Formats: sequence, C-alpha cells, structure tokens
Amino acid sequence: MAEDHRRPVIGDAFGTILKRCMDVGVAAGVAHEIVERDDGYLGVGDAVRYFAADDEWSPVDRWACDRATGRVLDVGCGAGRHALPLARKGHDVVGLDASPGAVDVATRRGVTAVLGTVEQLPPALGSFDTVLLLGNNLGLLAGPGHARTVLANLAAATRPGGRLLGTGLDPHHTNDEAHLAYHDRNRQRGRLPGQARLRIRDGAVATEWFDYLFVPLAELRELLAETPWHLRQAFEHEAGYAVHLDHRP
Amino acid sequence: MAEDHRRPVIGDAFGTILKRCMDVGVAAGVAHEIVERDDGYLGVGDAVRYFAADDEWSPVDRWACDRATGRVLDVGCGAGRHALPLARKGHDVVGLDASPGAVDVATRRGVTAVLGTVEQLPPALGSFDTVLLLGNNLGLLAGPGHARTVLANLAAATRPGGRLLGTGLDPHHTNDEAHLAYHDRNRQRGRLPGQARLRIRDGAVATEWFDYLFVPLAELRELLAETPWHLRQAFEHEAGYAVHLDHRP
Repeated sequence: MAEDHRRPVIGDAFGTILKRCMDVGVAAGVAHEIVERDDGYLGVGDAVRYFAADDEWSPVDRWACDRATGRVLDVGCGAGRHALPLARKGHDVVGLDASPGAVDVATRRGVTAVLGTVEQLPPALGSFDTVLLLGNNLGLLAGPGHARTVLANLAAATRPGGRLLGTGLDPHHTNDEAHLAYHDRNRQRGRLPGQARLRIRDGAVATEWFDYLFVPLAELRELLAETPWHLRQAFEHEAGYAVHLDHRP
Repeated sequence: MAEDHRRPVIGDAFGTILKRCMDVGVAAGVAHEIVERDDGYLGVGDAVRYFAADDEWSPVDRWACDRATGRVLDVGCGAGRHALPLARKGHDVVGLDASPGAVDVATRRGVTAVLGTVEQLPPALGSFDTVLLLGNNLGLLAGPGHARTVLANLAAATRPGGRLLGTGLDPHHTNDEAHLAYHDRNRQRGRLPGQARLRIRDGAVATEWFDYLFVPLAELRELLAETPWHLRQAFEHEAGYAVHLDHRP
C-alpha cells in the first residue's frame, strides 16, 4: 500500500496558484507555492508575494528595477509585480512567462504579457532597451551550458548599449544541512553546487522539472565570459545580489 | 537524472513546523504545514492556525470545546490551542501528541503535555471526564478496524458517564476532481472513500505515512456500534461536524 503512490499530474501549477490568489482579491494565506527539489526537499511560499508592491520587494529587486530604461522585457513576469509599476512610470513593458496561467493573470492586471521561454523567445517581440530577470530569475540561466544560450537569446532581443538587470541568490549563505548535502551531491555529479532541479507543485498538479541556478556573484562573472554581456555594476544584500549588465556586442 | 530523486528523511516534520512558528513569536506566513496524500496531492496550511485563539476556531471546535467538563484529555493537542483556554478556565487538562516537537511547544506554552498515541496510551495518565478529538482529530480513528481499538482505548481512559467530544469532516462536500478520484480509488481497494493515507512534510523531512479518516456523520454512527460510546448530540456546520459521545460501558 505505502508504495503504491501515484505521481502528480503534469500541468501549470504555478499559474494555478497565481490565479487562486488573484481570484480571492490577492490575499495572504490562501494560495501557496510549493517548490520541490529533486532530493525530496519541499519549500513553501505564499503566492501573495508575486503581487507585492515595490515597497515590499527585496532591496536587490528594487535596486535593479530602478535602473530600467526605455522599452523593457520582463522575463518570468509572473503576476506582473515589476511590469506594472514600470508601465505606470511610462515604460513600454512586455512581460514574458512560460506559465499560461501567469500570462493570463498578468494580462488581467493590465500587463502586456506573452507566453514563452528564454530558450525560445517568441517571434516579433521587437527590440528592447532593458531585459529584466528579477525575483532571482538569474536562476533561469539554469547552468553553465544553458546560460550561454539564454544570454545569447536575450542579447539578440536587446539593442546594443542596452542592459540586463537581474537578481540572484548566493547558495552558500546557508547552514541548512539539507542544502549543504544537496550542494555536495551536485558537485559529485559535475553540476554547480547551486544548480537546483526543481518543480512547482499545487494540489494534484506539478510542473515539469527544470533547472534553476543559484550562483555566487563571482561565478556569475565567469558565466559572462565570451558573451556580449559586461558586468557594469553589482549590489549585494545578504544572500541576494543584483547586477547591471551592459550589452556590448 | 530526473528519476534519481531521493526520498525525504523520516522525522518529526509536524513538530518542527510548530517550533518554527513559535520561535518567531507565532506569526503567519513563516511556517507552513504540507500534507501529502499518497496519490501525490499536496495541501498547504499556515502553522499559525495551530496557535489560534478560540474566536478563530471553527464553529464545530468551539461547540465541542464548550462542552468539556472536569478532567480533560486533549488528544492530538498540537501546540495546545484547545488545552490552554480550558486550563485557564480551571480544568485539569493533559495534552497528548505523537509529535515530540508538539509536546515540547505545548509544554513551553504552559500545557501539561505528554508524548503518546491513541493506539497505545501512555501509562499512569489516570482517568478523565472528557476526551477531546478536536481539529478534525476524529480522523485519528483512521479506519473501521482501527476505530474500534482507538475508541476502546479512549473508553478505558474515561470514567463511566464521561464524554468524548470530537470534530470531523464529511469528505463528500467537495467538487475537486482529485478528491473525487481519490475516493473512487479507495472504494476500489475496499477502503472507506475518505480514508486518507497522509504524511506531513517540511523541508527535507517527512513523517511516516498514517491513515486519517474523513467520514460522514451517518457513517461515524455505524463505527460506534458495539463500542461503549453512544452519540448524544451532534452539530453540523458546512462540511464539518462535532459530536458529543457518552461513555456508557
């Protein structure tokens, strides 16, 4: 009996969580995002944070968002927490998300949002002055090999002289034994320590597994070598950091 | 790679969640209880509800708690949300919980709490006027066979003329397809539809699997046949209900 456990259904768990939070008028305590790591670790966060106003953002997200200029591509826009205030300030903002539910929620909130991924950007997006990878979405670089593809794709969508503003987390700011064991396991498998294999779960539904990269700022610099992106400024706050990259083809 | 998923470590996930909530001064949004069902369904609740004051309890828990008399055994006491106000009203209350962390938290909050289960009550508890199974802890009846053992054990700890006050949930008040499919699966296996196989998860840790019974009030009556417990009163509120059982050996 105990071994006859079914697997969750594959679906848009992330979008479902955002929709549930929005459908109750964006309240805390209603919809929770469960992040499962492939060692069995489960983390939980309230979905309401995806709707947070700028005074509730992390200092690194605020630092990065303040530096947006011109036409903006918000990668992994979620419910549009960053896109909305930027649009209100007069920027032409396009939100991009791999979750149909997130695109739906962002659209309902007034964001111009499209379905797509950084692996394969939708056609006809046009060119941008700023690309955003906020909410730790530097994690979408996924890993050393993948990062080159993603950074090339984002460069192709950015005007020369444009910028990439992103935030990330240093995985080594932890004493949690489960995290430290996970880093060791990654090293043994030839992965970066903070290269997390994750999926989002909600009720009976799970997304597909995906890689999400937590990397120290020093190692992020190395990932930028031989790409069209040059690190201009960085800002660190506790385990988090923000970077301002210049597009110099 | 995707198939090399480790299993969580077995441990006191429930107690850890309660401790984390208490250690931040009992705040919402910090510690979440993840309940995993053996079909892969995950539910989430904020641990702060285990610390809720009586004006935040469900109507059925309030109804049941109001009927406590004399010396009280609070089965599955958790952080002591029911035991504390009863002790304040002058009752001699003993909390019982299978989670060492819950016993620790309840004790730190001033509850007389002991480690143990309804399958094997600790020795020397003495005799009680009231046994409580609140917070839907009629679920600890677990299933038809198990219910007889639990009800006999609780009767042995209760004075003749004493009472059992418990709350439960009717599993059929749902339109959720995942729940309905789970009920069907249980029927096919000869289990009651609402006989859920669950474990609590937190980070890298999971409890052992256990059965927890959601049963309509009408079927609870049948489980009481040929036990020393007689249904005296019941109160229903939406999917929930409370029962007052008399101990008539």
